[in-house]
Amino acid sequence: MKKSLIAMAALAAACTASAQSTVTLFGVVDATLKVGHGSASNKTQLGSSGLTSSRLGFRGTEDLGGGMSASFWLEGDLNADNGEGAATNTNNQASGTGAAVAGRQGLTFNRRSTVSLAGGWGELRLGRDYTPQFWNLTIFDPFFTLGVGSTQTIGSIITGATAARASNSIGYLLPPNLGGFYGQVQAYLGENNTGPVTQDDGKGAAVRVGLESGPFNVAVAVSRTEYATGNVRQNNVAGQWTFGFGKVMGQITRDRAGAVDGKGWLLGGVFPVGSGDIRASYSAYESTAVGTPETKKLALGYVHNLSKRTAVYATWARVKNGGSAVVALNGSTTGVNASSSGLDIGLRHSF
Amino acid sequence: MKKSLIAMAALAAACTASAQSTVTLFGVVDATLKVGHGSASNKTQLGSSGLTSSRLGFRGTEDLGGGMSASFWLEGDLNADNGEGAATNTNNQASGTGAAVAGRQGLTFNRRSTVSLAGGWGELRLGRDYTPQFWNLTIFDPFFTLGVGSTQTIGSIITGATAARASNSIGYLLPPNLGGFYGQVQAYLGENNTGPVTQDDGKGAAVRVGLESGPFNVAVAVSRTEYATGNVRQNNVAGQWTFGFGKVMGQITRDRAGAVDGKGWLLGGVFPVGSGDIRASYSAYESTAVGTPETKKLALGYVHNLSKRTAVYATWARVKNGGSAVVALNGSTTGVNASSSGLDIGLRHSF
Amino acid sequence: MKKSLIAMAALAAACTASAQSTVTLFGVVDATLKVGHGSASNKTQLGSSGLTSSRLGFRGTEDLGGGMSASFWLEGDLNADNGEGAATNTNNQASGTGAAVAGRQGLTFNRRSTVSLAGGWGELRLGRDYTPQFWNLTIFDPFFTLGVGSTQTIGSIITGATAARASNSIGYLLPPNLGGFYGQVQAYLGENNTGPVTQDDGKGAAVRVGLESGPFNVAVAVSRTEYATGNVRQNNVAGQWTFGFGKVMGQITRDRAGAVDGKGWLLGGVFPVGSGDIRASYSAYESTAVGTPETKKLALGYVHNLSKRTAVYATWARVKNGGSAVVALNGSTTGVNASSSGLDIGLRHSF
Repeated sequence: MKKSLIAMAALAAACTASAQSTVTLFGVVDATLKVGHGSASNKTQLGSSGLTSSRLGFRGTEDLGGGMSASFWLEGDLNADNGEGAATNTNNQASGTGAAVAGRQGLTFNRRSTVSLAGGWGELRLGRDYTPQFWNLTIFDPFFTLGVGSTQTIGSIITGATAARASNSIGYLLPPNLGGFYGQVQAYLGENNTGPVTQDDGKGAAVRVGLESGPFNVAVAVSRTEYATGNVRQNNVAGQWTFGFGKVMGQITRDRAGAVDGKGWLLGGVFPVGSGDIRASYSAYESTAVGTPETKKLALGYVHNLSKRTAVYATWARVKNGGSAVVALNGSTTGVNASSSGLDIGLRHSF
Repeated sequence: MKKSLIAMAALAAACTASAQSTVTLFGVVDATLKVGHGSASNKTQLGSSGLTSSRLGFRGTEDLGGGMSASFWLEGDLNADNGEGAATNTNNQASGTGAAVAGRQGLTFNRRSTVSLAGGWGELRLGRDYTPQFWNLTIFDPFFTLGVGSTQTIGSIITGATAARASNSIGYLLPPNLGGFYGQVQAYLGENNTGPVTQDDGKGAAVRVGLESGPFNVAVAVSRTEYATGNVRQNNVAGQWTFGFGKVMGQITRDRAGAVDGKGWLLGGVFPVGSGDIRASYSAYESTAVGTPETKKLALGYVHNLSKRTAVYATWARVKNGGSAVVALNGSTTGVNASSSGLDIGLRHSF
Repeated sequence: MKKSLIAMAALAAACTASAQSTVTLFGVVDATLKVGHGSASNKTQLGSSGLTSSRLGFRGTEDLGGGMSASFWLEGDLNADNGEGAATNTNNQASGTGAAVAGRQGLTFNRRSTVSLAGGWGELRLGRDYTPQFWNLTIFDPFFTLGVGSTQTIGSIITGATAARASNSIGYLLPPNLGGFYGQVQAYLGENNTGPVTQDDGKGAAVRVGLESGPFNVAVAVSRTEYATGNVRQNNVAGQWTFGFGKVMGQITRDRAGAVDGKGWLLGGVFPVGSGDIRASYSAYESTAVGTPETKKLALGYVHNLSKRTAVYATWARVKNGGSAVVALNGSTTGVNASSSGLDIGLRHSF
């Protein structure tokens, strides 16, 4: 079939570039057939990002000499199933992301938009970036906080504004090669005018430190974001142990949003089998919100790698609700304290 | 004049790439002076896509070995005259594209957003893609369904949601080299929760098969999209005959939207002259909607190729309305059963 | 820290490209800590574009032979601090840019979206582009109309729609190598239907001519944009003198919006010091609007170049208001006729 494509001019400039100055175009397109079953309704979708976040990005580094470098990173989410981008947040508050209009969300660099200066002393990073408090939740989850198997430890009581990323951030990251010790601190601004009681809303700070030593990798993160309605704390410790058959992971989280406390844990593992990986996890989260909701998830999956860049995968998960929780999987809806299950079958290609 | 441009880092990574893994940046910028005359008002605009759809895209293929490959394709419409992108549709229903806000439409990959796995057996393609029912209308139109000369056979009774593209689609395309025989099937999802009478809205399927043999190329497409208010069928057969002086094309369409029937036809041709092409078509569409509207269009144009990538062009067209139709060209407005004419003069550059 | 990044396919096509056909990916990421002080409130932000506009762009040129070339240019603003794009304007009228929704502005090519044909006779350029009336204001401002030090001569009485850029434009630019003489004309369309009194709203034209001779560079621009509520005129003359210690610049502007007149002036300079530049300017603007508002700004800054592409910088500025003006810097607010000051400290990286 001829999808007569327009002639393309190749990127000739590339061939004359100096080796130390590179710009890289990169991305992922991951489409997933998602089936969800709940006691109230079922749903079947073609979704996105079942294994890896669909994205488009541009990044590059310039060698400044003397061990110094400057770099930038622009990366935005894609909805592979319909071609939309995703919203960002401008002020780390709920008001920083307005209402969506179906089909009209253009590409933003919501995943990361940073400029950095780095040297032997570490890296200074400005812009929108992951928060330190998010890293343990995603790195030590066999499902990388994606798809139907994503960990329940992403606290349901935490406002979305800075749970995973923060805008207007100033970050410092330790250099690599500190004998396995790593860490970062980040401060982010809410950008309100002085005066009202909400003047500090959206302002916060976080620290994450960890140690990778032999087969062990353990890290702890603490964070606080200010809101006049009650500060949000998102704290966690997590780690993994790599051994002969694969690696096992664990997480413990302690959150607070105003007067509500939440806590969660995860136990999981990734086990190579042939050219693929078996993934499994059990995670739980409960809070002191009205009804003391509690949700537990069992997730099992298999990723078959066709190459380093391309994989097919399937994940199955089931949640059990308690304390009036109504968490349901893959867009289905379920009744109070009822369970829900879901299945992802997908194709992931990265470039 | 010095538009002092920022130093640019070249794409050095390119030079070290393995030959079988490529990412291509491609696009078209096509700007058109558009003049429209109608009995009620005239309009003069600088528009976009008079000859070829202005677009920006990224695509690539990875050789997986053993005759297999994985690929992705991200492509979005551009408005060359003002720099806007275009909306996509999230659920193949009218609700899947919300109201536009002037000047604010960012780039989406509304034209195509897919990930594919291909082999000797054909191609499996997931995401947002052209619908099979659209191909005959555009390939066998001398004006490629673009600009003032675009065919009238794009049925006026057909909802826009899946007339040209569908989100949440799963497609299978036959491999090339089947002795000229080609074909594809596609199923797409509306992604509604089960329960209400509209649970299947936006769900559909389509098939297209064709044969290219010597100077002849003929194809047929049938499709059905479900809506509780009445299913939509968009069916067509079309083809072309290439001979000494150029090629002639024809289309016959039969549509149905709920209780309303529509039918159309086109006869046209493309005739090389020097380094250019003369394009001509006559197309008509009528439906059983209130008033039994009928519109006929005569279109004439010339494309002068300055290179394979760059062309200047002019197209003139005139529509005649009947049955209370008020179709007008290039943004003009015209009275009931009145006619309208329009002229495009443009410059198209592809990369 | 392992931000495990997806494998990236390099842009191999580049290496086989013909030398005369290039597509360039380019951009800037400039993040700035912005502090503003006013008599009513203060503000601290991480902002964008304190030294150079954060942006992402794609551009290319095709050699058509015989001294002719075709080219395209797609460039959009970025908000480095949160990853948003910026809106464009569709019709050169206030209605051409609708209300913003926080966090949802996708990338548009609002800075420039053009296709061009060029030869020894000059360049024909179609699309969205800078207006001729904007160039003198930015080129002859030591702060390039960016950041806290940006010139006050950007008239406060001028509608934003065509103050810096126009959509739907047809431009002609003189060729280079005319002995230092340069110039351009531009016409732009409002794209309204004929009939109402506002039918010509947003339609305009502008001319800019200049002469660069030895150490001197002087240019004049005149423009008119039509609106039924009163035409807008934005006229200016500006220039610079480069001598041993640096260069000094001056601007004089004369604006008119309906029945309101505005006038401004700037005197400034850029003085190289080691691997950096000291920048300074004093600018003023007053109008006959209600209260006859008047604002004067003193701005001082230093840019330290770490390389041609990367710089750190600091700018301090202070405004004095008169005639009931309330202009305040960096998001602070200030009382009637009160002053305001602001500080930018930032990092700019271009690629």
